[in-house]
Amino acid sequence: MKASTKIEIRFADLDAYRHVNNASYFTFIETARFKLFHEYFSEIMATGLQFLVVEANCRYLEPIGLNDPLVIDVEFQTPGRSSFILNYILHSGKGKVYAEARTVMVCFDSSQGKAVRVPDQMRLAFEG
Amino acid sequence: MKASTKIEIRFADLDAYRHVNNASYFTFIETARFKLFHEYFSEIMATGLQFLVVEANCRYLEPIGLNDPLVIDVEFQTPGRSSFILNYILHSGKGKVYAEARTVMVCFDSSQGKAVRVPDQMRLAFEG
Amino acid sequence: MKASTKIEIRFADLDAYRHVNNASYFTFIETARFKLFHEYFSEIMATGLQFLVVEANCRYLEPIGLNDPLVIDVEFQTPGRSSFILNYILHSGKGKVYAEARTVMVCFDSSQGKAVRVPDQMRLAFEG
Amino acid sequence: MKASTKIEIRFADLDAYRHVNNASYFTFIETARFKLFHEYFSEIMATGLQFLVVEANCRYLEPIGLNDPLVIDVEFQTPGRSSFILNYILHSGKGKVYAEARTVMVCFDSSQGKAVRVPDQMRLAFEG
Repeated sequence: MKASTKIEIRFADLDAYRHVNNASYFTFIETARFKLFHEYFSEIMATGLQFLVVEANCRYLEPIGLNDPLVIDVEFQTPGRSSFILNYILHSGKGKVYAEARTVMVCFDSSQGKAVRVPDQMRLAFEG
Repeated sequence: MKASTKIEIRFADLDAYRHVNNASYFTFIETARFKLFHEYFSEIMATGLQFLVVEANCRYLEPIGLNDPLVIDVEFQTPGRSSFILNYILHSGKGKVYAEARTVMVCFDSSQGKAVRVPDQMRLAFEG
Repeated sequence: MKASTKIEIRFADLDAYRHVNNASYFTFIETARFKLFHEYFSEIMATGLQFLVVEANCRYLEPIGLNDPLVIDVEFQTPGRSSFILNYILHSGKGKVYAEARTVMVCFDSSQGKAVRVPDQMRLAFEG
Repeated sequence: MKASTKIEIRFADLDAYRHVNNASYFTFIETARFKLFHEYFSEIMATGLQFLVVEANCRYLEPIGLNDPLVIDVEFQTPGRSSFILNYILHSGKGKVYAEARTVMVCFDSSQGKAVRVPDQMRLAFEG
């Protein structure tokens, strides 16, 4: 499964080097993730299931300025038992790639306090 | 002059109380301000003139959640010599007002290191 | 009651103007507030009582740079029924005042979903 | 070369899951980096040389709460021509490891607009 969403840069995302700060890229991919989860899995989100980041990686290729367009493509990989991998491409929508990122996620049930199986509805969607 | 823009809530804007953190409202109005300045005064922005916040205020009326729509109306008041006031209404676009904010801004020329007169182009626009 | 705490500036607090962003001042005073509340009212904090900001204000006097020392003095005013006011002075610890801020807070019981009376223990401390 | 520094958690670092947000770890290691660079390489920092993050990675092992102690150990690896690697361990100072992170950095001269050689003073220090 692949999906795509636009992110709006804020002045506060810039740092003293006048480009988007490296930590903000992780906020951007989180924003993309939540938007897409809300769009595709709102019922699952409403159950209180949490999706924890257990590993995150980003390779920075081009700086992002305040008025640059930003699109994030998210690829959902076929999950393991309780974890799954998301790959992100941060780009301009016009051929310029700013960064490539990746998160390893775990499904976590906060009421039980433990990792749980990736819901079937998500498995089906991810394979779609 | 009045103008309006949409802001997208990010998961990172929420705090442990599960609503948008109070400091994020100031980031939201800054984002609205830069978007509108870029739209209306891009030539002035390109000269390097800075608009510094010398006072900021916000009254919080209703909490904002992750998936709530957010629109910010900005009212530009007729400026003084080097300062001007912006009033903001943060609302849902459907009648619900989340907050009212206000910033006092000063035009600052960083090359001269001092406050300078509000440009005529902005004065004209503000009065429009 | 008055209390004081140090805050450490982070590179991420700076914006493209190379000084601390105006919204970060509200994060700083929140940090000071939580540190002092944890120090003086840890039992009350543990009950889950929340302290919501219903109004916030800051006057910016001097810019803050990355390596500047920052101390925040907090003055706790005698509370009303469910609300109280905190005044903050952000300074260098060596006579330079960066900003003056103020928040109006409300005691909120999230289990009841409503404002509640300021606890007596806090009233006594505030008057001390 | 190895060095170590304390970081103070802020309420704003927490997200709606009530633990430190995953993106904040990158802000923490950046804060540690700037503190240590300021301590050891203040002259080089003053020349305007920038250290850009070209890759960042974090493995999250244990959640971090608001009042948890946080120490970051930074290991500076022997540099290549214009790049170097920093490894970070985020821990409690009492044996609990929260996360392991790594950044690949490039020395960048903004006046020339290009990557430049890692300064000899840094090479010597890193090997020490």
